[in-house]
Amino acid sequence: MATLRVALCQINTVVGDLDGNVARILDAVAQAEEADADVAVFPEMTITGYPPEDLLLKRGFVADNRRALDKVATRSGRVAVIVGFADGNPEVHNALAVCAHGEVVGTYHKRHLPNYHVFDEYRYFRPGVEPHTLYDIAGVRVGVSICEDAWIAGGPLPQLVTGGAQLIVNINGSPMYGGKMAVRERELAHRVSEGPVPVVYLNLVGGQDELVFDGGSMVVDARGTVIARCRQFVEQTLVVDVEVDDHVPTEATFPIRAVTERTVRADQLVPQVAPVHGRLDEIYDAVVLATRDYVRKNGFSDVCLGLSGGIDSSLVAAIAVDALGPEHVHGVLMPSRFSSDHSLTDAQALAERLGIEHRIVPIEAGHQAFLDMLAPSFANLEPGLAEENVQSRVRGVLLMALANKFGWLVLTTGNKSEAAVGYSTLYGDTAGAFACIKDVYKLTVYELARLVNRRHARTVIPESVIVKAPSAELRPDQRDDQSLPPYEVLDPLLMAYIEGDATRPQLTAAGFDPDLVTRVCRLVDIAEFKRRQTPLGPRLTEKAFGRDRRLPITNHYER
Amino acid sequence: MATLRVALCQINTVVGDLDGNVARILDAVAQAEEADADVAVFPEMTITGYPPEDLLLKRGFVADNRRALDKVATRSGRVAVIVGFADGNPEVHNALAVCAHGEVVGTYHKRHLPNYHVFDEYRYFRPGVEPHTLYDIAGVRVGVSICEDAWIAGGPLPQLVTGGAQLIVNINGSPMYGGKMAVRERELAHRVSEGPVPVVYLNLVGGQDELVFDGGSMVVDARGTVIARCRQFVEQTLVVDVEVDDHVPTEATFPIRAVTERTVRADQLVPQVAPVHGRLDEIYDAVVLATRDYVRKNGFSDVCLGLSGGIDSSLVAAIAVDALGPEHVHGVLMPSRFSSDHSLTDAQALAERLGIEHRIVPIEAGHQAFLDMLAPSFANLEPGLAEENVQSRVRGVLLMALANKFGWLVLTTGNKSEAAVGYSTLYGDTAGAFACIKDVYKLTVYELARLVNRRHARTVIPESVIVKAPSAELRPDQRDDQSLPPYEVLDPLLMAYIEGDATRPQLTAAGFDPDLVTRVCRLVDIAEFKRRQTPLGPRLTEKAFGRDRRLPITNHYER
Repeated sequence: MATLRVALCQINTVVGDLDGNVARILDAVAQAEEADADVAVFPEMTITGYPPEDLLLKRGFVADNRRALDKVATRSGRVAVIVGFADGNPEVHNALAVCAHGEVVGTYHKRHLPNYHVFDEYRYFRPGVEPHTLYDIAGVRVGVSICEDAWIAGGPLPQLVTGGAQLIVNINGSPMYGGKMAVRERELAHRVSEGPVPVVYLNLVGGQDELVFDGGSMVVDARGTVIARCRQFVEQTLVVDVEVDDHVPTEATFPIRAVTERTVRADQLVPQVAPVHGRLDEIYDAVVLATRDYVRKNGFSDVCLGLSGGIDSSLVAAIAVDALGPEHVHGVLMPSRFSSDHSLTDAQALAERLGIEHRIVPIEAGHQAFLDMLAPSFANLEPGLAEENVQSRVRGVLLMALANKFGWLVLTTGNKSEAAVGYSTLYGDTAGAFACIKDVYKLTVYELARLVNRRHARTVIPESVIVKAPSAELRPDQRDDQSLPPYEVLDPLLMAYIEGDATRPQLTAAGFDPDLVTRVCRLVDIAEFKRRQTPLGPRLTEKAFGRDRRLPITNHYER
Repeated sequence: MATLRVALCQINTVVGDLDGNVARILDAVAQAEEADADVAVFPEMTITGYPPEDLLLKRGFVADNRRALDKVATRSGRVAVIVGFADGNPEVHNALAVCAHGEVVGTYHKRHLPNYHVFDEYRYFRPGVEPHTLYDIAGVRVGVSICEDAWIAGGPLPQLVTGGAQLIVNINGSPMYGGKMAVRERELAHRVSEGPVPVVYLNLVGGQDELVFDGGSMVVDARGTVIARCRQFVEQTLVVDVEVDDHVPTEATFPIRAVTERTVRADQLVPQVAPVHGRLDEIYDAVVLATRDYVRKNGFSDVCLGLSGGIDSSLVAAIAVDALGPEHVHGVLMPSRFSSDHSLTDAQALAERLGIEHRIVPIEAGHQAFLDMLAPSFANLEPGLAEENVQSRVRGVLLMALANKFGWLVLTTGNKSEAAVGYSTLYGDTAGAFACIKDVYKLTVYELARLVNRRHARTVIPESVIVKAPSAELRPDQRDDQSLPPYEVLDPLLMAYIEGDATRPQLTAAGFDPDLVTRVCRLVDIAEFKRRQTPLGPRLTEKAFGRDRRLPITNHYER
């Protein structure tokens, strides 16, 4: 048995920040050197950040990325560095470089390009077709691969093992959705069953627009068991001694490129296996990380949000506090003539328990001014949706004015159930920079609110907020359940229609009430125009609104 | 020489409207039968409409589309029908079917899938790999192909000719950008030079969200000359007698499937070649068609817009009138304390000349109400951007309230220069359903305004509107050129940065002022968050904001 000492460099890169990413890489390489590692492994497209999207169409960007890689290579020494970058110009590959002793020793081009869900890799990359090469790193024959390559039965991983690889490195930019970690473990176990060598699976961590990369980088041994894992949702450089069978296969058929010499060391590291998050903790930590990274990577420090005394805004306020600290969160209470007393008192209680600055800005003056301005046009017409929307939009304008004045970002508070059926006011409650819980169904919002209280070991979100009947309070005695079915009924139907891509006849066949199916699916369809103008927010499911679900607005399909 | 009588069925399909599209197809087939045609040719994905986007991920939709195709086939007779559809389930091909005598005689799968610009075809389709087949239609060996297949040198078209095709049919969903028609003609001439047989190029017409299909279907003869062309931007069934050399090559090497028998006819049709639009007419008619189709296909009849007395809103009002008729356009004049007198008089003059209903809703009451509501928060702070944005947002709320009340859609009036540098107020002047001129640079806005007056042969847009200095009028004596360079300088720089994908050093090397480059590129980059929340509008250039330009919001690349 040989041992390869691997530094899992699970870093939080920033898209387009070539100099910053180089600095982050060199910092982690220094830690790997300090720990006497043989190889430091980084996430997919480390140099550019991931995904760089149409930056890759700028030839100048790809050229700059190559120069940044050369800086990393020049600084490399005895520790081999495996780092992702964009290779080639103008035809670009999603690539990795193996660097050591001041040079790029070799490169690998991703062979299998995902072009589904949130991925558009055929837009940017050509698939790799070069013959496989193995890299001799400290006496171990290492096969390298990128992300999707590891998901293909009979693909690059078993091929590399057949060709003589004793260990596989697979670098990833794998965004999370609920339960993704178990899916990854299962896929890796399948690959290892096809080619029984250890796999080093390195994942990105951090938020990038609507994507959340959860980290959880790991080492799987030749039996498919996870023997080391980084923590999820945080940066970590974890150094792992990976035992490699150096007898079978005794000969490699793929060409081998020498990278570094074997070193002898006496100590043996104790492997660390961070636990995998449970369902709710995973969602919560993902939203917190996404919110923090969106705000800070875009150069902001503070956020504001409207506090209605309802559960959605209460949860988002708690998330913001965990993401940014209470001193960076500003609550705005905007009661109207239709607000109930508990709206104000519950919102105040929440703000005080979270320890955030908050203010009350009654909307009556603006509300009445619009009614007056519109009176000549609306004469003799019954009040209705137009007047309800005005109230929500007055609040949106107030929040934006405060944000503009003080340099804050506005967080919106709508959940996925609302976004689905369009139960929101465009330019009103949807106005803002980041929609923290837009991919969280309402039933999960309740669960997360209780999680917040459990985590804080005290009642941060008042019980009255959790148990009250949901209402937009845009007219007297309005309640969600007057126009929507209970969320216990609505959410499963929405999931089957959205995540399940079912048609109306299929939903009815599955046991949903036909009238409800017709009504709810219609609501989802016609709300597409709203969703296109709402801010992005973290993707947490296998099909989030956003780049993940691309339906036309103009769409006459009604089945 | 044999003659094939081809009906170019340039129809305006609707995405998802399977029954409606079948009806449109059968209607055109009836016209083809009436004209004694041999074959009726339809645009790409005729059955589903194009592009159906993620509808294709619903297996139920693909199954329904197949049933719709069978309806078309069942109704087919002596006239062969070549129609686009989605074939296969769950693996889907962008396909066409050749139907006759009540049956689907054969299918073809698109081989070359565009996955660039606005196209994401690898998301939905597998490329076709089946061996080529020729179709004997009325004694002529016809080779079939779809869109991108015709753009590949040495690709399916010359292959089909080598294999024995005497005529090529190529069905398209080819969205326009300025000058695209000439590009198509050039590509077809290249293909014909590789395989000298006539090509029937059938294109879709109509607006679908941000795409505009301009029609202009044509027949190119074996020398590459356009011998027939449909009009651009309108539906048309054009019947053309295409002469086919039935001697060379004398033998086909590809298998031939019998479709219909040769018929003898005495008459010969005179070919019609509709002229190609000039640059400005093309843009204008594209915007008119896009606006009409967006409004009507989404079930609306009327639109409203804010009339500021400026050139952008004046142009959009004229477009709306040409798209929908003056009785369906509602102008709203919303003067503020900072509005100049000519804003109101120019807007009134425009509305009267266009013959549209219009009303004046002064925003002072709302403006002041917000200043009052915000006074405690803004105490002792200088007025600035926050207060300016409030005015724009009051107007946005008013327009939305009117639209909500009367069932109108709001048209926004921002141009591409503004959208690029973020010279707009989110939820203010960007609030609305459709952004007619979002892909029109300001300099072109001036040209289009003069075009409107030329087309109407009278001054619809007052000269004072065209010559006044642009201003948002959000503070006293504000003018665009106080914060932006003249559009004569700005627009070429924007084009080089956006359409040209140039980096800052490249722009400076090309002669643009370095400070201006830094400032303008920064403005474009940081306005990305705004553009993501603004309504869609027609794509008119080779790189429009929208699905065509996918840059991350979180993006630290600054070169």
